[in-house]
Amino acid sequence: MASNSFGSIFRITTWGESHGKAIGVTIDGCPAGLAISEEEIREALVRRRPGNNSYTSPRKEEDKAEILSGVFQGKTTGAPISILIANKDVDSSSYEPIKDLLRPGHANFTYLEKYGIFDYRGGGRSSGRETACRVAAGAVAKKLLEFYGIETIAYLKQIGKISTTSPSFSNMEQLRRDVYTSPLFCPDEMTAKQMMAYLQEILEEGDSIGGVVEFVATNLPVGLGDPIYDKLSATLAKAMMSLPATKAFEIGSGFAACMMKGSEHNDEFSKEGDQITMKTNHSGGVLGGISTGLPLVGRVGFKPPSSIKKMQKTVTTTGEETTFSLSETARHDPTVAIRAAPVVEAMLSLVLADAILMQKSAKL
Amino acid sequence: MASNSFGSIFRITTWGESHGKAIGVTIDGCPAGLAISEEEIREALVRRRPGNNSYTSPRKEEDKAEILSGVFQGKTTGAPISILIANKDVDSSSYEPIKDLLRPGHANFTYLEKYGIFDYRGGGRSSGRETACRVAAGAVAKKLLEFYGIETIAYLKQIGKISTTSPSFSNMEQLRRDVYTSPLFCPDEMTAKQMMAYLQEILEEGDSIGGVVEFVATNLPVGLGDPIYDKLSATLAKAMMSLPATKAFEIGSGFAACMMKGSEHNDEFSKEGDQITMKTNHSGGVLGGISTGLPLVGRVGFKPPSSIKKMQKTVTTTGEETTFSLSETARHDPTVAIRAAPVVEAMLSLVLADAILMQKSAKL
Amino acid sequence: MASNSFGSIFRITTWGESHGKAIGVTIDGCPAGLAISEEEIREALVRRRPGNNSYTSPRKEEDKAEILSGVFQGKTTGAPISILIANKDVDSSSYEPIKDLLRPGHANFTYLEKYGIFDYRGGGRSSGRETACRVAAGAVAKKLLEFYGIETIAYLKQIGKISTTSPSFSNMEQLRRDVYTSPLFCPDEMTAKQMMAYLQEILEEGDSIGGVVEFVATNLPVGLGDPIYDKLSATLAKAMMSLPATKAFEIGSGFAACMMKGSEHNDEFSKEGDQITMKTNHSGGVLGGISTGLPLVGRVGFKPPSSIKKMQKTVTTTGEETTFSLSETARHDPTVAIRAAPVVEAMLSLVLADAILMQKSAKL
Amino acid sequence: MASNSFGSIFRITTWGESHGKAIGVTIDGCPAGLAISEEEIREALVRRRPGNNSYTSPRKEEDKAEILSGVFQGKTTGAPISILIANKDVDSSSYEPIKDLLRPGHANFTYLEKYGIFDYRGGGRSSGRETACRVAAGAVAKKLLEFYGIETIAYLKQIGKISTTSPSFSNMEQLRRDVYTSPLFCPDEMTAKQMMAYLQEILEEGDSIGGVVEFVATNLPVGLGDPIYDKLSATLAKAMMSLPATKAFEIGSGFAACMMKGSEHNDEFSKEGDQITMKTNHSGGVLGGISTGLPLVGRVGFKPPSSIKKMQKTVTTTGEETTFSLSETARHDPTVAIRAAPVVEAMLSLVLADAILMQKSAKL
Repeated sequence: MASNSFGSIFRITTWGESHGKAIGVTIDGCPAGLAISEEEIREALVRRRPGNNSYTSPRKEEDKAEILSGVFQGKTTGAPISILIANKDVDSSSYEPIKDLLRPGHANFTYLEKYGIFDYRGGGRSSGRETACRVAAGAVAKKLLEFYGIETIAYLKQIGKISTTSPSFSNMEQLRRDVYTSPLFCPDEMTAKQMMAYLQEILEEGDSIGGVVEFVATNLPVGLGDPIYDKLSATLAKAMMSLPATKAFEIGSGFAACMMKGSEHNDEFSKEGDQITMKTNHSGGVLGGISTGLPLVGRVGFKPPSSIKKMQKTVTTTGEETTFSLSETARHDPTVAIRAAPVVEAMLSLVLADAILMQKSAKL
Repeated sequence: MASNSFGSIFRITTWGESHGKAIGVTIDGCPAGLAISEEEIREALVRRRPGNNSYTSPRKEEDKAEILSGVFQGKTTGAPISILIANKDVDSSSYEPIKDLLRPGHANFTYLEKYGIFDYRGGGRSSGRETACRVAAGAVAKKLLEFYGIETIAYLKQIGKISTTSPSFSNMEQLRRDVYTSPLFCPDEMTAKQMMAYLQEILEEGDSIGGVVEFVATNLPVGLGDPIYDKLSATLAKAMMSLPATKAFEIGSGFAACMMKGSEHNDEFSKEGDQITMKTNHSGGVLGGISTGLPLVGRVGFKPPSSIKKMQKTVTTTGEETTFSLSETARHDPTVAIRAAPVVEAMLSLVLADAILMQKSAKL
Repeated sequence: MASNSFGSIFRITTWGESHGKAIGVTIDGCPAGLAISEEEIREALVRRRPGNNSYTSPRKEEDKAEILSGVFQGKTTGAPISILIANKDVDSSSYEPIKDLLRPGHANFTYLEKYGIFDYRGGGRSSGRETACRVAAGAVAKKLLEFYGIETIAYLKQIGKISTTSPSFSNMEQLRRDVYTSPLFCPDEMTAKQMMAYLQEILEEGDSIGGVVEFVATNLPVGLGDPIYDKLSATLAKAMMSLPATKAFEIGSGFAACMMKGSEHNDEFSKEGDQITMKTNHSGGVLGGISTGLPLVGRVGFKPPSSIKKMQKTVTTTGEETTFSLSETARHDPTVAIRAAPVVEAMLSLVLADAILMQKSAKL
Repeated sequence: MASNSFGSIFRITTWGESHGKAIGVTIDGCPAGLAISEEEIREALVRRRPGNNSYTSPRKEEDKAEILSGVFQGKTTGAPISILIANKDVDSSSYEPIKDLLRPGHANFTYLEKYGIFDYRGGGRSSGRETACRVAAGAVAKKLLEFYGIETIAYLKQIGKISTTSPSFSNMEQLRRDVYTSPLFCPDEMTAKQMMAYLQEILEEGDSIGGVVEFVATNLPVGLGDPIYDKLSATLAKAMMSLPATKAFEIGSGFAACMMKGSEHNDEFSKEGDQITMKTNHSGGVLGGISTGLPLVGRVGFKPPSSIKKMQKTVTTTGEETTFSLSETARHDPTVAIRAAPVVEAMLSLVLADAILMQKSAKL
């Protein structure tokens, strides 16, 4: 049960609403002895809240993560790690007038039906704000992965019809630099420029647009993931599809595989040095749900943000017809796919940290 | 943990290898008082093993499901339901010569690395045979859904580049008839014919091809699924991506949403009679991870089967270069997407049965 | 996994060390629509920290519980409820000199071996301070039980060899008054006086003493608890034995049953009005692990507190022989059984709240 | 959820009714590479079904355990291990006439209320027969413990008022021999004789009697068990209290600790060779819920069996007054504590196997 938790051994539980006093996450099951600081978590949070471009509308939160437990003298102790992020840039007044209005594409309709009550301030629990907790926990997971020499990253691959080819994974340090310095988290500077021009158009229309984030993990051991229901690909799918605004997930060749023949798609085994490996990676680093050691690659599809400045028809909670649009001065993200990249990276890291710990009991 | 289990309250655990004595599933958490018979399970199993076309290569198992516990006087008792399916059509001799050979696209490489031992006979635990257990359990889940008036079905949507448009969901009885009577589980007879011709070509080439299965559930209550990590869409993604040979999953508009604008994608709310509803269903029946009451629609992408008759390069477990192809007389499925349809239907039913039981404690 | 969580549907996760910034608990799975206030939680916390007698040595914390999420306009929303309790009365200086000393009866030895690192300040995670989080969560569980008309209470039954007979459960309001107004949580005033005199002796000796807490829940429906591994009695046993300093648990007749004959022990069924019931209650309200509707009664045995003012031999973490005793002025609880009573009550409430929610899916 | 499962990583799921076709268990999470045979499981099952004395009334089952999956070439593969035990000595005719009668001390009352349906044949799911599955799984767990050099055993300690002192744990091989060759699983031959005479009396009275089983595990590493809710002592308590007919559990000094002073109870640390250890073991091998490396010792209290030949008053399911006694020729166990010993040993082994696997991710 416990729908606000994710993971088996390395397990997170998040809590908090967009406009409540604070949000937070508890990490249970992180091994003792891992060095981690509030500063490292803050850095990850800052990436989620870029602010260095006009295509994301971050809250002006300082997003200071406070570690309240589980770390002693700079290292994890094996006790649960509680991280708290205060909500400071909160003004709920604009939500009051629309609290009885069903906003197209929003979850207030389903929450109200499910629970009979909805904390409408800033979207309450349904807000993307919850993903800050994932990023904070992901920063701890990344430290664990580093210990095992594993690298993870996610970047913007597509906005509307503008798409880049996948970058090379042979120099992860370079890739990380390219991604983290791009205002769009897009490692291909040329495409990023096109995307920015397009996003400007979208903003001017008062509209929004969907996008695709690609993720990759390298230097994985062979053997992560479990054969049947906890396939690495299945757990990743759940992790990514649990993000707000997601509509699609693929691993390796993805939907393109549906149009390929076996003779094209199969990755032939070969030997490089002492290592058995494959020359192609259509599988995306997973065979039978278990990591092959090749780069773990996949993509997540995000729908266009629901909140737009164009007028839309809708009804109130009591069924009266009305219309809705964001006010001209409202916060407005033209796409969710940019700021989603660091969150996808966090989810990837959480899944792998858990898989590594689970792997420890696979054989005698 | 427990990587061979799926579900929270309505929870299944499967066991068994392709060429072991038997395979089976235990269902824990099915409410007492549900009428279920071995015949109903057998019927579902028969669908998974079509045999009524030349594009699937079923074992000649009778696939008789034996209910060993949890049912008394024709009804569930609340005790765990154990279902056993004997393995009869088993000849492991053809696997002996290739046991030290890494077959491209197969999981023997990753299993061997992970566990240090691999039951290679018929693919062992990695075989698609395990999905018979999912179908058996899915038949019980479907009975529970029937009690709540919910319908579920899955059908072939695409083979290679040949694709159908989605059928109408207004007459589910008709749709079920169209799907179940099609040798390809494809409700569109015209497209099915094209697909058959194409599959014939593929077979003659000794090759294989990928495909897409679409699923739908209708008459859902509003409110199924949990907001954060157990979103209905996330749990479905995990369920589907846990099937062998899957590479992609989408819900509603899926990857197409990435190229849509908010003004196109948002489903406007309206009132029909006493009911609040939406005129379009880009969301695919889920908002914020919770069911909207509209049809729950999604798609699963399958890669081409790895076992083909074309010659492929590979290496042995000790790294020696060699080649591999299926023998001319071997079993050979040109696509996995046909026989996957009833399994997708089963997984959909299992996810929904669990969501309905979880929903019971959402509010006072 | 997740060793810092308890419960299935109504599930708590606690975090925090004795001398960290704060401790806290997240409740996941509480139904929406339940009225709960910070004041109600504070009242329960105050009981755990009596201060109204000389036999408990509470920290001078105000123990203000702050609800950070999951409650909106005074009611639960279905989102996780995060409760934070700041640590204010914290002075770790006295722990510094003894950090490399293994204290007899203390957990620093096992923590250090297990994790390789130990937050020794105030006992860190091993401190009884964690139970404040259980009491806070228990207050929410009690509100849910109230909704179903169920009463729970726990009281001091024995200190050393001084023991009371069980009180009557026919007037729970009276019993609650007697317990809550007793400085020892002992409903029998005469025995309480004897206990106090004895505790005074123990204090003067600089020693400590063990004790027994009894718990009862009344007005339970028949049917709570699950037949095999989640028997109500088994889950209660785990709940109680997870408390610090516990050595024993019994339900109903307990160890006394080992000396009874079947003809004495069996509770005969009879009919009272429309109700099938039993005249005796040796079973303690549980048959086959499932509640009978009669009072659920059991007992928890606590060892004497380890920290005493008498001198004891021990060794340091590096194995050097030394001695240890609490300083004359140190905090010193002569027994843990008094302040344990409200915590036992909280655990009982948590177990029952969860059992009630699980019960909702037992039959169609 | 999943009330028919036990364990986190090494996790069992049992199924089956006393008079169904078969009972069985699936072990998920056993590491690959462990040698296990059907014969080893059969041996454990034979112990549970002594037949070598007149004080247990075993079914005349051969209790042949069939391993249906998860073992290949004599070793575990990491796949779930399914073990099936057929029910052969089954005659349900004697249960037909009493199916509407509430038997004192039996669970048919609570099952019927909970589920609205009850498989009354042989007690159905509530029968002690389920424990054969625990013993089968326990045999696999014991093999894993052997790999780590850990020994586990359980023995009869008390029947009615006749009790033995605890044996020495310094020679486990000798202790095992003494226990396994005793018809009562009692290592003290003199006391066993007294017990036998007493059981004869009880049998002649047509009555039954309670008893206590003690368990011990030796050669444990320091560090097993988790600090808060999954304390080794708490998990053991749940394991033991999940057995039929249990009323009480204690670890180490148990309830006796409630009458001890801290100066008596604390185990002083000392150094033996390179090892830090304790000279006494009141803690029973657990401090703060984590193993100390000393023998893990505890006791389980069983009530007298409910089925006796003395006449008892009761009512029918519709509330009509009647009486009930076992027929003169019926199976009749004078105590459950004898045959419970191998089951307690199995549960102890299961808890420790799981704790060892969980321990693997405690620190970097």
